[in-house]
Amino acid sequence: MTLTLTPLREIPLIRPGDDLGGIVLQALERTDIRLQDGDILVFAQKVISKAEGRIVDLRTVTPSPRARELATVTEKDPRMVELVLCESSQVLRAQPGVLIVEHKAGFVCANAGIDHSNLGAGDDPEQWVLLLPEDSDVSAHNLRKQLEKVSGVGLGILIIDSHGRAWRQGTVGISIGFSGLPGLVDLRGQPDLFDYTLRITQVGAGDELAAAASLVMGQAAEGTPVIHVRGFPYPLRDGALKELIRPKEQDLFR
Amino acid sequence: MTLTLTPLREIPLIRPGDDLGGIVLQALERTDIRLQDGDILVFAQKVISKAEGRIVDLRTVTPSPRARELATVTEKDPRMVELVLCESSQVLRAQPGVLIVEHKAGFVCANAGIDHSNLGAGDDPEQWVLLLPEDSDVSAHNLRKQLEKVSGVGLGILIIDSHGRAWRQGTVGISIGFSGLPGLVDLRGQPDLFDYTLRITQVGAGDELAAAASLVMGQAAEGTPVIHVRGFPYPLRDGALKELIRPKEQDLFR
Repeated sequence: MTLTLTPLREIPLIRPGDDLGGIVLQALERTDIRLQDGDILVFAQKVISKAEGRIVDLRTVTPSPRARELATVTEKDPRMVELVLCESSQVLRAQPGVLIVEHKAGFVCANAGIDHSNLGAGDDPEQWVLLLPEDSDVSAHNLRKQLEKVSGVGLGILIIDSHGRAWRQGTVGISIGFSGLPGLVDLRGQPDLFDYTLRITQVGAGDELAAAASLVMGQAAEGTPVIHVRGFPYPLRDGALKELIRPKEQDLFR
Repeated sequence: MTLTLTPLREIPLIRPGDDLGGIVLQALERTDIRLQDGDILVFAQKVISKAEGRIVDLRTVTPSPRARELATVTEKDPRMVELVLCESSQVLRAQPGVLIVEHKAGFVCANAGIDHSNLGAGDDPEQWVLLLPEDSDVSAHNLRKQLEKVSGVGLGILIIDSHGRAWRQGTVGISIGFSGLPGLVDLRGQPDLFDYTLRITQVGAGDELAAAASLVMGQAAEGTPVIHVRGFPYPLRDGALKELIRPKEQDLFR
C-alpha cells in the first residue's frame, strides 16, 4: 500500500488563541482532502505552541545563578538558559554553543526545544522565544477529539519537532506528542518469510512517521506545518510519547 | 507537493549473484510505475548484501582472543563477535546483550549491522549471518547507473538499515549508502517567512527519507524491500554517506 504525505495548503500564521483545528479543517478543504478513517495529521510543534500561547518575552525573564553559570559555559543568553532549565529535568551536556538537556517530558534535545526563529511577534524578534507545548500528548488528544467530531472518522494526531542526534549530522523530525497512533510497534516474535523468528523488532514507527512528515514540511517553510498522511501501515491505537523514551537505566549514551 | 512511497510488488527472494537492477525493473512494471526524472528507489540493506554475496557461514569463522573476551562480556557467539570486530573500527559499548560499534563505514550501530534473520540459506539458519554491503555508496552508485541507463531518467538510490538510537526506544530506518540524492541539506542562512535567519538548518534529509521508506517496508516483510519514492522535496545531487557522519571530535555522545 502506498504511503502518501501531503502538505495542507495555505495554513495562515498562527497566533495565540487561534482555533487550530478549525484552521486545519479549512486547509483540508483547500487541499481537496476529505478525511478518511485511519488518516493521520502531523503538526509541526511550532503551530501548536503558538496557538497555545507558549511565547515568552525574554525581557520578562530573570536568570538564576545556575542559569548565569551555564550561560557562561555555553556562551548563551542567561535568560534563554533560565527558560531551558525551567523546561528540563536534567542537563546532559554543556559546552560552548551546546546545551543538551532532558526535557521534562522525558526526551533528550538541545535547548529544551526552545527556539527563536519564526515568531513574527512584533518588535525585536531576538527578544521572543517559543517553548514546546506544555503537554504535547494532551495537545494531540484535544485536536484529535475536535477533528474526529467534525469529520466523523477515526484519526491519528502526531506532533513533531526537529532534533539533532548522537553520532550523525543533520536534524531529523521526531515525535513529541501522540494521540490515536502507536509510537512503538512491537513485532517481536512475528515470523518472517522463513518462519525464522525476528530479533530486532521494536520499531519506532511514530518517529519514522515524524521523519517522513518533517521531510515534507522542510525547515524554512512555515507555510506547510501540517501534513496529511494516508496509508500508515500499522494498526492505529492510542499511543503516547512515553513509549519512545528509553528508560535512563537502559540508556548507555547519556 | 505530495510525497508518495510505494513498495514494489513481488520482489523475489534475492540470492548471491542476482541481477538486482533487473529484478527491480520487472517489479516496477508489476507495480505499474514508470520511472520519472527525480524519482528515488530505496533498498533495504538485506537485498543488496544478499545480491553481493555478503553471507558468512559462522562455522568457517575462528574467533580471535579479543573476540572471545568481548563475547564473554556481551554473552554473544564469539564467532559473531569476531565478524563484528572485522567490520568495525571501534567498540563503543559492550555489556551483556549489547555490542555497539563504529562500523568501518563510519556510522555507529549495534553488531556492525550483522544479522541472523531472514537468510533462507539452507540448513541451520542460526549458522548463517549477513554482513552489510562492502561499500554501500558504491552499491548505490552501480544500481543507479544501471537503472538510469535502462530508464533514461535521472534517479536517486538510497540504501537503508534499521538502527537503534541513543535516548529513544525503537529502531528507525537510517541511510547507509547514497547515489544521486543529498544526505544532508544545508538550509543555513535561508530566510523564513519573517526574513529572520534560521539557525538549526542542516537537515538530515537522507535519514528522513530512510525512516519514511522503512515505515513502508515494515520489518517482517522481506517481500517489500524496495520502495519507490516520488516527490522528494530537495534538489537531487550526488550525495554520500559521509555527509551524515558526525566527526568524532564533535560528538558528545560516544
